[in-house]
Amino acid sequence: MMDRIPVLELGDVLIVSIQGDPQDQDVLALREDLSDAVVRHGARGVIIDITAVEIIDSFIGRMLAAIADMTRLLDAPTVVVGMQPAVAITLAELGLSFGGARTALNLDRGMAMLNHARDARK
Amino acid sequence: MMDRIPVLELGDVLIVSIQGDPQDQDVLALREDLSDAVVRHGARGVIIDITAVEIIDSFIGRMLAAIADMTRLLDAPTVVVGMQPAVAITLAELGLSFGGARTALNLDRGMAMLNHARDARK
Repeated sequence: MMDRIPVLELGDVLIVSIQGDPQDQDVLALREDLSDAVVRHGARGVIIDITAVEIIDSFIGRMLAAIADMTRLLDAPTVVVGMQPAVAITLAELGLSFGGARTALNLDRGMAMLNHARDARK
Repeated sequence: MMDRIPVLELGDVLIVSIQGDPQDQDVLALREDLSDAVVRHGARGVIIDITAVEIIDSFIGRMLAAIADMTRLLDAPTVVVGMQPAVAITLAELGLSFGGARTALNLDRGMAMLNHARDARK
């Protein structure tokens, strides 16, 4: 049994580290938890780290896209960071994308992307 | 099969989010990965988030203490954050501690603790 994927707060950014190969229900639960957390903490952005994810199928890809669409509606863009090269190759081969989720190489660059987006809105 | 617990970098701090109930070999692998990462990135601190951990036995407790001792020798103190109340109760009942690891309520406070430690050394 997998526990819920934890949502960490760092200032007004939420950080999620997806580990192993998440099951469908884990990602569904994450969507709920993240929408609650964005509103509760007034988050201005979400970073989803997938460093440890080796397989992303079309369901997980669609769910990440759905999460990104949802957080954007809540004014908190999602950045997916840490994609393994093999995952990128598979996604490109399958023609999958994360919809409205942007991607950045790593956590540092994801944070910079969110800071830049915030500054641009001032 | 569990993959290795990922080590994220945020500036010069390493962040590890332990999920589920880690097996002994996962924590052993984490110790190696963290020592490598501290040196490679010149990290000034390590934050281990245990928000999603519901059970900490004496082995895991000792390993967290060993990790904290190791990172301190490398001049990068470890802060354990996100402990569930039930975990704290169990640790207190068993008389366990994390040795040299400090604890903070959450990621924000853990980061503040590391910043404070750095400023104090200037």
